[in-house]
Amino acid sequence: MDLNFGEIFLWEMLGTATLILLGAGVVANRVLKKALGFGDSWLFIAIGWGFAVFVGASIANPSGAHINPAVTLGLAVADKTAWADVPAYVLGQLVGAFIGAVLAWLTYKLQFDTHDEPENTRGIFCTGPTVPNYAWNVVTELIATFVLILWILLSPGATVGDDGVPVFGNGALGYAAVAFVVISIGASLGGPTGYAINPARDLGPRIAYAVLPIKGKGSAEWNYAWVPVVGPIVGGVLAGLLFQILPASS
Amino acid sequence: MDLNFGEIFLWEMLGTATLILLGAGVVANRVLKKALGFGDSWLFIAIGWGFAVFVGASIANPSGAHINPAVTLGLAVADKTAWADVPAYVLGQLVGAFIGAVLAWLTYKLQFDTHDEPENTRGIFCTGPTVPNYAWNVVTELIATFVLILWILLSPGATVGDDGVPVFGNGALGYAAVAFVVISIGASLGGPTGYAINPARDLGPRIAYAVLPIKGKGSAEWNYAWVPVVGPIVGGVLAGLLFQILPASS
Amino acid sequence: MDLNFGEIFLWEMLGTATLILLGAGVVANRVLKKALGFGDSWLFIAIGWGFAVFVGASIANPSGAHINPAVTLGLAVADKTAWADVPAYVLGQLVGAFIGAVLAWLTYKLQFDTHDEPENTRGIFCTGPTVPNYAWNVVTELIATFVLILWILLSPGATVGDDGVPVFGNGALGYAAVAFVVISIGASLGGPTGYAINPARDLGPRIAYAVLPIKGKGSAEWNYAWVPVVGPIVGGVLAGLLFQILPASS
Amino acid sequence: MDLNFGEIFLWEMLGTATLILLGAGVVANRVLKKALGFGDSWLFIAIGWGFAVFVGASIANPSGAHINPAVTLGLAVADKTAWADVPAYVLGQLVGAFIGAVLAWLTYKLQFDTHDEPENTRGIFCTGPTVPNYAWNVVTELIATFVLILWILLSPGATVGDDGVPVFGNGALGYAAVAFVVISIGASLGGPTGYAINPARDLGPRIAYAVLPIKGKGSAEWNYAWVPVVGPIVGGVLAGLLFQILPASS
Repeated sequence: MDLNFGEIFLWEMLGTATLILLGAGVVANRVLKKALGFGDSWLFIAIGWGFAVFVGASIANPSGAHINPAVTLGLAVADKTAWADVPAYVLGQLVGAFIGAVLAWLTYKLQFDTHDEPENTRGIFCTGPTVPNYAWNVVTELIATFVLILWILLSPGATVGDDGVPVFGNGALGYAAVAFVVISIGASLGGPTGYAINPARDLGPRIAYAVLPIKGKGSAEWNYAWVPVVGPIVGGVLAGLLFQILPASS
Repeated sequence: MDLNFGEIFLWEMLGTATLILLGAGVVANRVLKKALGFGDSWLFIAIGWGFAVFVGASIANPSGAHINPAVTLGLAVADKTAWADVPAYVLGQLVGAFIGAVLAWLTYKLQFDTHDEPENTRGIFCTGPTVPNYAWNVVTELIATFVLILWILLSPGATVGDDGVPVFGNGALGYAAVAFVVISIGASLGGPTGYAINPARDLGPRIAYAVLPIKGKGSAEWNYAWVPVVGPIVGGVLAGLLFQILPASS
Repeated sequence: MDLNFGEIFLWEMLGTATLILLGAGVVANRVLKKALGFGDSWLFIAIGWGFAVFVGASIANPSGAHINPAVTLGLAVADKTAWADVPAYVLGQLVGAFIGAVLAWLTYKLQFDTHDEPENTRGIFCTGPTVPNYAWNVVTELIATFVLILWILLSPGATVGDDGVPVFGNGALGYAAVAFVVISIGASLGGPTGYAINPARDLGPRIAYAVLPIKGKGSAEWNYAWVPVVGPIVGGVLAGLLFQILPASS
Repeated sequence: MDLNFGEIFLWEMLGTATLILLGAGVVANRVLKKALGFGDSWLFIAIGWGFAVFVGASIANPSGAHINPAVTLGLAVADKTAWADVPAYVLGQLVGAFIGAVLAWLTYKLQFDTHDEPENTRGIFCTGPTVPNYAWNVVTELIATFVLILWILLSPGATVGDDGVPVFGNGALGYAAVAFVVISIGASLGGPTGYAINPARDLGPRIAYAVLPIKGKGSAEWNYAWVPVVGPIVGGVLAGLLFQILPASS
């Protein structure tokens, strides 16, 4: 079926909001001192974000479960999403990401208010490098996103529906495959920059961090904000281009 | 097929008893000093509860695997479960949750008896907030349950059977999808209140804690008991209402 | 198809040997000081044993993947395995468990030889209680095994083949469902006794521990050996009996 | 369909490069002090490598997803891959493994440069024993690889395609089964030698470690390099031979 602008916007917004609510949530649970998950491991973060993608993608299934502008652009480059639909996707993703960040803050409102190191709460919302260096940070985000989009394009389970968007088979479990890839990328490639691998995932919550009345909050670090936007976009586009020149995979 | 009151009661009781036996069990394993899992991580709790739902839901498959009054009410609001069946579901869930808590106590009887901080054993049975504030605690439980029920209603794998209850495809593995959602909610949204997201899961074991002769036990904290009942119910009902106004998802 | 004594024996032996090689292996990895997994968490053990069952059951698929006398007996009581086949199953399981323990020792031979607390290596092979009390230890093993066998009998994915043995659908992934149940039982009910939930899993490796020339080894604790045999058998039989009186689950 | 030399080489190279990028990545994340996963658990490593195989195998699906010379040889011995195709497989795997290691280094370039114990970075690329003893180290690698190849040959989900290479069903999720086996082997049998279980996985990155300008790097330990080549090959061949003499598994 063909979805119109509003339907694409709606499902992507709903899916991305859920993604960011759960994704920002797992970081909040690890960072905030009055949260039960305080101090947990990086594996906890990788698994938490992975299953956050599972839930968000399942909810955004009607629109093809992009919930990530780098996915939308990579699929457009690979001729699997119409360029005319790209604005609806990206707008829904950005609005959803902002809403999800607000919901995560509301969920952990009391823990934010009682946290005694408020300057480190930015990491709950958006990513940052452990060693700042724009060029290399872009390389890291580019490689990590390239793996994600290439897998989406080549996965034996990604079938293309009537409107050109890929869907994963196996019903409720289909998107578990996406979760496993995201767990892998988080565990393996997330170490240097916190793996945005999704421009909306970083930009939407960064805006939320900047505008929400979070107690004692620090800078939103806008100087870094372009890195997790440009790196994933370039990575997604390169994966789409590689897909175009590969021999048919089946 | 249509199930009668007794059949619904039976399967929901059996499934919820298994859920709580395993769910209370994983907390007991982490909290009690003479248990082999003593001091393990929050990830351990999230995975333990997630797979507890997997096992309990698989067993309650004949009745649609609600094992949670918030699921039953959300599905009723979404016109996917008959209102006339709601009492059989909820009663089975509450009785099962009580039985499961008793079984968890029997499983860890020796560890309860040798535990030297008996006042902290209530957390094995029922939830509590890290920062007490009824209004915000309700918000947290509401948001977490809303995600659960919305996912159940929208998941591409949830198909509706003859009697209006959803079942998950993929046979033995179908309910793994539910486990992954619950792992996600526990990891991401469980930090502030311990994620009841299920009125029976909290109330049944709280009653068990109050009546069982647990060595050195403390208060059952009845003043908080309404929060993990009201929050999940409101969250489930809101998800059912949102589902009603969304465009068809397929 | 009907399998003869030798075929049942062969597949159960092969599957159980793999199960114990991997299961004893994950404990060795955690216990032995020169192993890379030394000191890891209980979650590590639960996941390790869970996927050990996945691998062992996949290999024993031709014979129905019992790899556990409590499964065989529970299925026989539930009229899903012929009583005449029980000896072939149990014998294969016991011999396989012994072989698997020997292989695990060979895999970690250098780590056994350099371990400086040899008296604690028995836990690599067989289970023991944190608080010794035969009656309650039996209760714990009984409850944990009851959950396992009841799930196997009721799981929506367990279909009964031509020869009466259940098989799990979904091809290579089918037995992942069994892994998730075993992860759950280990995380939730394994705290008091180390969850044998399988007489062969405990007895076979205990014999191996007694006869192998393990450097500095301690007692095999034969006085406890009947507990992880009797508890699981009674639990399996009770689950089979309950299944007989339950209404049809589909 | 029959693939020619170039197609086999291409898909195996692409899949193995992804495998090693993610596999070396998860170790880098744990070992390098400026990485967010620094100091995480062995479970983290086992899960990270397991899902790395999931992603790499999904991408190499068109060529049967060997991404491991021990798999290729085991399947050839079992008459499931043509001997004439073996060179294309192995060459693609080795080249891909080298490329993946280079990409992992680029991803973590800043973390390598700021790491203050450069002599311990070899473990990010290739394996080594905790207790050096060539004979026993070979035994460990042999047993671990034997389990992997035997499972691949016997798994109920491995179906053989037109060109004799096995493929796993269930679409995007099919290779999750392979991930679970690799998680199991890593958790259970990886403790003594770091589980190469794949000659290309060890040799390709070892060459990369030797030639890349990694800051402060130590020796590539070439004297050990034959162990993770010979052990896995012998293990794979033995599994193929056992498969040949086993009765038909279905």
